[in-house]
Amino acid sequence: MKCRVCKAPALVKFPAHNAAFCEEHLDAFFLRQVAHTVKKYRLLPPEARVVVALSGGKDSLVTALVLKRLGYRVEGFFIDLGITEGNFSPASRQACEEFCAAHEIPLKVFSLHEEFGRTVPEIARRYPRLCAICGMTKRHIMNEYTLKTGAHALATGHTLDDMAAALFANLLRWDLHYLAKGLPVLPAEDGFAKKIKPLALQSEEEIIAFARLHGIKPVEARCPWAAEAKFKRYKAMFNSLEEKSPGLKRAFYEGYTKNVHRFQEETTRPPLVTCKVCGLPAAASPCTFCRIWRNAIKEDAIPAVT
Amino acid sequence: MKCRVCKAPALVKFPAHNAAFCEEHLDAFFLRQVAHTVKKYRLLPPEARVVVALSGGKDSLVTALVLKRLGYRVEGFFIDLGITEGNFSPASRQACEEFCAAHEIPLKVFSLHEEFGRTVPEIARRYPRLCAICGMTKRHIMNEYTLKTGAHALATGHTLDDMAAALFANLLRWDLHYLAKGLPVLPAEDGFAKKIKPLALQSEEEIIAFARLHGIKPVEARCPWAAEAKFKRYKAMFNSLEEKSPGLKRAFYEGYTKNVHRFQEETTRPPLVTCKVCGLPAAASPCTFCRIWRNAIKEDAIPAVT
Repeated sequence: MKCRVCKAPALVKFPAHNAAFCEEHLDAFFLRQVAHTVKKYRLLPPEARVVVALSGGKDSLVTALVLKRLGYRVEGFFIDLGITEGNFSPASRQACEEFCAAHEIPLKVFSLHEEFGRTVPEIARRYPRLCAICGMTKRHIMNEYTLKTGAHALATGHTLDDMAAALFANLLRWDLHYLAKGLPVLPAEDGFAKKIKPLALQSEEEIIAFARLHGIKPVEARCPWAAEAKFKRYKAMFNSLEEKSPGLKRAFYEGYTKNVHRFQEETTRPPLVTCKVCGLPAAASPCTFCRIWRNAIKEDAIPAVT
Repeated sequence: MKCRVCKAPALVKFPAHNAAFCEEHLDAFFLRQVAHTVKKYRLLPPEARVVVALSGGKDSLVTALVLKRLGYRVEGFFIDLGITEGNFSPASRQACEEFCAAHEIPLKVFSLHEEFGRTVPEIARRYPRLCAICGMTKRHIMNEYTLKTGAHALATGHTLDDMAAALFANLLRWDLHYLAKGLPVLPAEDGFAKKIKPLALQSEEEIIAFARLHGIKPVEARCPWAAEAKFKRYKAMFNSLEEKSPGLKRAFYEGYTKNVHRFQEETTRPPLVTCKVCGLPAAASPCTFCRIWRNAIKEDAIPAVT
């Protein structure tokens, strides 16, 4: 197995690209691939300032590193959810801090406990659909923070495996709302920061190879509350299909990006109001986030007698 | 496990419908389901004459029986491909003959050997892509025959499992040509008989239960040349997803039927000519069928010196 570029012994082989690479050319290949995604989907203008949502996992750390290597002004952003079970939040935070120190990336840590005096496990007692609440919480904070900093965009570490599995899930249900917005870029709108997914065309195996190459040490703890069985099943399914047909995941997702307009025609979004607490667009005021975390009381609700 | 209708002990359980049935009400349920498909997609007007393509397998035999039970004038049509390996064609023919005799359905047998003095295995020596040639051959003969009889439509035994697997395959490649025509009905066009798939919403397990109920004995031999590994893999994949989420296959395919217009806008078909031999529309004249089976010589081809 020889490097496609220099014919030296190869370190990794990517069947989807019908190619193998040595250390040096794996690095160049990965950078070139992401640069191509950034250009093709207009994720970032040259030297833009970008907030990268860091979880401590390999995908988000690689996103930060590759964007920095491509010349963007990267700022890491970590939300400390306060999940101490299995040392999840502390270990994740430490992985981000060590990574950012090693790569000279400024890191902003946003602690739910410090900001709101409460953590996700504390919220869990009142809200049974915890993963949904936690996801909403993270999205709200990341959006609010990115808008405040004035950065060009918020980048997340979604991979090709994530995109293909989500696309499949949305096609299974023909969920037009999500099928309309599955590109690697979601443009900025009033009250919504631009969202970008620079690794949307890179498979997990490519990302793992790049992370290893650069000695990235992602957090090993997994969220003790995580319940994504369905999503994991779809990912495993695609990986078994990919084994028989290398390149299948990428062709599936890229084919979608060329056909996304088919799902966008009639996208009607329910009209949004402005949350009187945070000032951001929401389905109702106060928004769910402010009701949960900022103790905002629903205007038409009678406070419960406690 | 009790029958949903009469509370008698149930014979079968269909998790996708969250229902179980006794013999009597399984029959009624299956008929009602297919009648609903026929009505919803306008497959057939009342008492229409319909040619059912019979292979000897359970799906096509059940298609014929259920359409007859629903009051349509059914004519069976079997193409004897002359595949004697594993007794495939003779056993398939016998299954059709016995089925049609038992259910008083007229049967037309079309023998390649009798009509053209050649069989599929004989053709195989010259044409390597045999499954493609055989499929084209059957489609051509069924279409030509249906047009000749003046029947309202040609019915095939495609099941929900077939439709979901084909839809997935076409979405993986974003094959717009096929994504535009995946409904249970393909309307008649000049030179093309109307094609219908009455079992497009029934799963294999429902069809097997109905076949057993009526003592249908499908052929057990499988085509020794068959090479549908990919398709089988997709079917197995959907069945494993279905186990976790009953009704998933049907929701996926029905969701598609509601969204098929998204793939139909720009369908541009290459212009067709009329085959000077069979008189039917084709990409070139003579058409591939007439060149292979009727020894028609390509006008712009120089006959090979033999």
